[in-house]
Amino acid sequence: MGKGKVVLAFSGGLDTSICVPLLKEHYGYDEVITVAVDVGQPPEDIQKATEKGELIGDKHYTIDIKDRFVEEQLFPSIKANGSYEGYPMGTALARPLIAEEISKIAKAEGANTVAHGCTGKGNDQLRFDFIFRKEGLEIIAPMREMNLTREWEMDYAEQHNIPVPVVKDKPYSIDENCWSRSIEGGVLENPSTHPTNDIYAWTVSAQDAPDTPEEITLEFEKGIPVAINGNRMKGIDLIMELNKIAGRNGVGRNDMIEDRILGLKAREIYEHPAATVLLKAHADLERLVLSRQELAFKNIVDDKWSELGYMGLIHEPLFAALSAFVDKTQERVSGNVDLILYKGSVTVAGRDSPNSLYSDDLVSFESTTIDQNDAVGFSAYYGFQARLLK
Amino acid sequence: MGKGKVVLAFSGGLDTSICVPLLKEHYGYDEVITVAVDVGQPPEDIQKATEKGELIGDKHYTIDIKDRFVEEQLFPSIKANGSYEGYPMGTALARPLIAEEISKIAKAEGANTVAHGCTGKGNDQLRFDFIFRKEGLEIIAPMREMNLTREWEMDYAEQHNIPVPVVKDKPYSIDENCWSRSIEGGVLENPSTHPTNDIYAWTVSAQDAPDTPEEITLEFEKGIPVAINGNRMKGIDLIMELNKIAGRNGVGRNDMIEDRILGLKAREIYEHPAATVLLKAHADLERLVLSRQELAFKNIVDDKWSELGYMGLIHEPLFAALSAFVDKTQERVSGNVDLILYKGSVTVAGRDSPNSLYSDDLVSFESTTIDQNDAVGFSAYYGFQARLLK
Amino acid sequence: MGKGKVVLAFSGGLDTSICVPLLKEHYGYDEVITVAVDVGQPPEDIQKATEKGELIGDKHYTIDIKDRFVEEQLFPSIKANGSYEGYPMGTALARPLIAEEISKIAKAEGANTVAHGCTGKGNDQLRFDFIFRKEGLEIIAPMREMNLTREWEMDYAEQHNIPVPVVKDKPYSIDENCWSRSIEGGVLENPSTHPTNDIYAWTVSAQDAPDTPEEITLEFEKGIPVAINGNRMKGIDLIMELNKIAGRNGVGRNDMIEDRILGLKAREIYEHPAATVLLKAHADLERLVLSRQELAFKNIVDDKWSELGYMGLIHEPLFAALSAFVDKTQERVSGNVDLILYKGSVTVAGRDSPNSLYSDDLVSFESTTIDQNDAVGFSAYYGFQARLLK
Amino acid sequence: MGKGKVVLAFSGGLDTSICVPLLKEHYGYDEVITVAVDVGQPPEDIQKATEKGELIGDKHYTIDIKDRFVEEQLFPSIKANGSYEGYPMGTALARPLIAEEISKIAKAEGANTVAHGCTGKGNDQLRFDFIFRKEGLEIIAPMREMNLTREWEMDYAEQHNIPVPVVKDKPYSIDENCWSRSIEGGVLENPSTHPTNDIYAWTVSAQDAPDTPEEITLEFEKGIPVAINGNRMKGIDLIMELNKIAGRNGVGRNDMIEDRILGLKAREIYEHPAATVLLKAHADLERLVLSRQELAFKNIVDDKWSELGYMGLIHEPLFAALSAFVDKTQERVSGNVDLILYKGSVTVAGRDSPNSLYSDDLVSFESTTIDQNDAVGFSAYYGFQARLLK
Repeated sequence: MGKGKVVLAFSGGLDTSICVPLLKEHYGYDEVITVAVDVGQPPEDIQKATEKGELIGDKHYTIDIKDRFVEEQLFPSIKANGSYEGYPMGTALARPLIAEEISKIAKAEGANTVAHGCTGKGNDQLRFDFIFRKEGLEIIAPMREMNLTREWEMDYAEQHNIPVPVVKDKPYSIDENCWSRSIEGGVLENPSTHPTNDIYAWTVSAQDAPDTPEEITLEFEKGIPVAINGNRMKGIDLIMELNKIAGRNGVGRNDMIEDRILGLKAREIYEHPAATVLLKAHADLERLVLSRQELAFKNIVDDKWSELGYMGLIHEPLFAALSAFVDKTQERVSGNVDLILYKGSVTVAGRDSPNSLYSDDLVSFESTTIDQNDAVGFSAYYGFQARLLK
Repeated sequence: MGKGKVVLAFSGGLDTSICVPLLKEHYGYDEVITVAVDVGQPPEDIQKATEKGELIGDKHYTIDIKDRFVEEQLFPSIKANGSYEGYPMGTALARPLIAEEISKIAKAEGANTVAHGCTGKGNDQLRFDFIFRKEGLEIIAPMREMNLTREWEMDYAEQHNIPVPVVKDKPYSIDENCWSRSIEGGVLENPSTHPTNDIYAWTVSAQDAPDTPEEITLEFEKGIPVAINGNRMKGIDLIMELNKIAGRNGVGRNDMIEDRILGLKAREIYEHPAATVLLKAHADLERLVLSRQELAFKNIVDDKWSELGYMGLIHEPLFAALSAFVDKTQERVSGNVDLILYKGSVTVAGRDSPNSLYSDDLVSFESTTIDQNDAVGFSAYYGFQARLLK
Repeated sequence: MGKGKVVLAFSGGLDTSICVPLLKEHYGYDEVITVAVDVGQPPEDIQKATEKGELIGDKHYTIDIKDRFVEEQLFPSIKANGSYEGYPMGTALARPLIAEEISKIAKAEGANTVAHGCTGKGNDQLRFDFIFRKEGLEIIAPMREMNLTREWEMDYAEQHNIPVPVVKDKPYSIDENCWSRSIEGGVLENPSTHPTNDIYAWTVSAQDAPDTPEEITLEFEKGIPVAINGNRMKGIDLIMELNKIAGRNGVGRNDMIEDRILGLKAREIYEHPAATVLLKAHADLERLVLSRQELAFKNIVDDKWSELGYMGLIHEPLFAALSAFVDKTQERVSGNVDLILYKGSVTVAGRDSPNSLYSDDLVSFESTTIDQNDAVGFSAYYGFQARLLK
Repeated sequence: MGKGKVVLAFSGGLDTSICVPLLKEHYGYDEVITVAVDVGQPPEDIQKATEKGELIGDKHYTIDIKDRFVEEQLFPSIKANGSYEGYPMGTALARPLIAEEISKIAKAEGANTVAHGCTGKGNDQLRFDFIFRKEGLEIIAPMREMNLTREWEMDYAEQHNIPVPVVKDKPYSIDENCWSRSIEGGVLENPSTHPTNDIYAWTVSAQDAPDTPEEITLEFEKGIPVAINGNRMKGIDLIMELNKIAGRNGVGRNDMIEDRILGLKAREIYEHPAATVLLKAHADLERLVLSRQELAFKNIVDDKWSELGYMGLIHEPLFAALSAFVDKTQERVSGNVDLILYKGSVTVAGRDSPNSLYSDDLVSFESTTIDQNDAVGFSAYYGFQARLLK
């Protein structure tokens, strides 16, 4: 008699697939419950994970948390202009919720151990572990603990009749949810290697995009996108639609060097068409309605929010305090932004808001509302201390 | 007998042109010395200002400070990723140097009064006044003090035989130097009005750009760009060349709402092709060579540097301290960045540096240098306090 | 027939007293309504202001807003560890509320003009004007506009039968409310002059304090002090009691150089016994219950909150967002702090909280809960990038 | 034949003493070289460590780096107002230098392994390991690896004829260098337990201090203290003298909750008499000579400098950049500060500097240099955007 039940975070890929027999043979568990969590991956991937989980696991769950993901993580990240070292986080924001869903199932199933397929070099192990430890669960991470090679894994899979994807053609490591698709590994590891076009799945190349610009209007309410071209949609639908629109115009590719949590720098390539467009529009609208003081300080808050978001530390109490700051500022961030998408670029063309702090009367060259002489007094004190300096 | 000499910051436009007779007739000066400062405006503008100054001023100087401008203001602004509310500052960085050059001439000429043509609503009055006051000079600002209308100015110009540009066609207020061209006023004052293509002078529209992408490699040494495609050039030449390259690919337009120093929000449109490309490449290179801690804190420093730069407060002692921070980080920011310019967008395709903190051995999925088990201990303390929280 | 009614912020001092006849004779108003606002000044000062206002004004109001002051400004400033360049702000926090009360009376009286006795060099003019302008009121500031000397003011007072305090003995400018007493001017203007003991009113000198230490326990709930030695009191009573306790032990004097809003540095001396004790206890309790991440970032938030508080910009929208951040962190700041007051110093001797993040099991040298080997893995990544640096 | 040489960081305490036989018997080394580093501990402790090292080690070094410690770590920490969560770091700043000295000896001796006596819960293991790893040395930490109890250690010491201090009387863990003495452990682990007077060694209690205040004048040059009461001394002498002066007046005790690097909160008690006085005086002088902008931003820089200093990450490149910022600001921080020490408190009584930004003419109530009307214009724009807000 073995160790009972273990609940496995299951994607259907090679790593998590071989975890099923490993958890039994190597770790001594009797029952492996696989859980796939839908955070907006391509439906066919969810489908495959479900089929495979049902095939090789003792019990399988597929949980759809797309709405929760959008409302609890993506909308707040739009409000906070969520961006880590220059890119909108996707994987990072999904991991804690996935871990929470798996914890719920573990508790419902009476299992006090969970397993994930993360290695010991990346970020995801830390994001998963954080939640699992907080929930008081034991953690098994075979890929981190056993130092397996890809060859060994493939042989082992074959021995256990686990279907394996043909890896020769796609030597990259890919993660997807509705906010972002990341591509890393293989030849891309060299920071100077130019990526080839075949690594992308959500976006066409700028050259392949249509010759006619596409104009859209996005509407925001309290920092949250609510409509495209006047059509109100719920969050997940709006994001999926924008992924299509921006993707077909070649918008949303990102090639960068990124600092992982452990300190390693990694070359990562991303596709995040909807995120690119939404974050650009949101920041533009903020400049219309927030005060200069808000904008300047919110930059610092947004950066810290993003850092914690990247780390997956959504229960760090600072995260809640930063969110309270952000939410307060967003009460006035409502309005419309016009954007033009064309062959890889997205441009703001106009914006308006009922809460605009812009006054065309005040700013106009022809206005007489402001007494220009007031600026003389203002100027008398401008840079005062710097002028006292010898 | 009047008040003697006054030195006027002279652009050749309507405002500064009518200042010449105003300073005599209205303010009582005997001699108006006009000074045009070349910070990389279009040569024909400098030419026109020189001719006009020589025509209507009692004495005229044209001073070329392009190299000083690049070395003292633009290179530091690249190092600091200089950007105010999302755009690379041009006018702001030029003003203090212009004011210093005019102060030098005032002192050489024995004048203790200077004049400028700025209004009482904008930023430039404050940037000019700051330097002039620091230099102990008296300031006259007829546009701010007299509240003149454009009609009055044009009549007054005609009466004094001052040639006036045909304003009907270009109802915008424009400022140019080698780093940026700004367009404001007229119908653009409405934040929701889409700009038409005819306001731009340095960039073609994305649609009019060539159908073939253009790839370039930029080389940096200690944070400063030194070569395009391996051709080393001095700063001003490199910037002018990049303005051409990026401009012909439709790169470098920016439409935004900006907070002026006095607190008014203004809708401003910019062209800054070289700046767009240089800042993007520089930031990418920084991610390869700076540590995560440097990147995160430098964001805050860069923002503050940019705020002071925007305000023109280059003698505020904080500015020197921020620059010392930035310079220290830039000692390692050397290397090459490959970029692709195409129909309005610029994309980084690869980068390398002798000071890279990237280690492909460490990051690789196949590497065995790192003991993956170390991450288990790291993970044990990850989010420790957040987990203690009830 | 004159300009009707004007409402005057009235303290009963020389400046605001001569404003009454000045507003009629010099400014042409028919009726001067005096308003004294009680924010915890010594009761005899309020009494004197009331009597004098009733004597020389056409109509007088004395408004008690001590509770509002404590709840809306002082409690939030405790939560935010409110301190500008090293001292707990008193005057700054009271001014906006005083201005709001005066605005209310102006509106109730149908007056659209208000007046204050501030000069053109200090902070209070800006704090008052900000609120008055926001309320759409016209502002008269005779001291700023008329450049009067003290001699002229005293003669003028005598001519108008206004009782004048004997100024020879008290050549200082003093402002008081329940949170702070400020002393400036006279020989104190020289930063190197040691203050003499006679300038203080709320605190005895350390040497005159009792020879026996006094120990107290303060209880906080959600960042707010609620009890001294177990006796629950409402805010204003608790503060007044603490002013007495700390004052008699010589605690709460502060001699400093401060940057005024306009940029002038001023030498200011403060007494703030209750504030010294409360802020020290509150910060200590925060270190017990807030996470390290909260503490570090809250420092930045607290500094910005204090800067806006000092400026009196309580309606700047950033202020509300900062307060939302602070309030979120304070939900857990409950507990007791033991303090010892003795001859000028206050020392924390112990603290406890139901929300403590301290775990004596974890930290103890004898504990075995933590696997010390985990630190080996943590250490493997410690300073990782700094170690990669050549 | 064993593993050759190992170099041990040696304090002479129980832990590092038993490391000598452990490194041979348990770890298999042939030769244990002990190194004691003098960073200003009490001379008798250094003497004891030297004698004990010579007795039980195979070879012993005592290295005096007091001057290096003062110049490379303590002076910079004064410039940066170095303080972690409210106390001046001592141990943290000494550790990296100690580790570097030990690394030098290891290399000179041809040893590629070093050992330290730190446990797996504290900060010092991380500070030591960081340097040792950077130097490419193998690390042995018996206390962390072997999970020994105090009883076992004492028995083991006895078996090996290692003299052991009588621990009953001193159940605390103590660390000392010239900047700070820390006391932790035992009954102090409970945050609410009041410390008794017998734990202190450098300071008398406030009640035992003299009844007469002691006044001193400290002179600073470019942020560094150079003289007491006009007597110039080198750094270490000045600090030792100030420890005496402040200590005899009961100044410099600190009882606090502190966040360790791993995330554990610990109750720590410190004595740092010289540091208390120097940091207070330095901060006061800064307020006289630095601009408001410098003061506000330097707070953020100082905090980050202190965080890295606390972590011992002196080779993190951000640390050098922060130091460059700090050094730039300190060029003007020269002058004198008068302080009064009395029964536990230290008070600033006056200060002056040739670089003062204070102008008594400008600030005086009687001055006419400033045109008070200028403030009207300043006020017109004060809080401008907050007033626009509906």
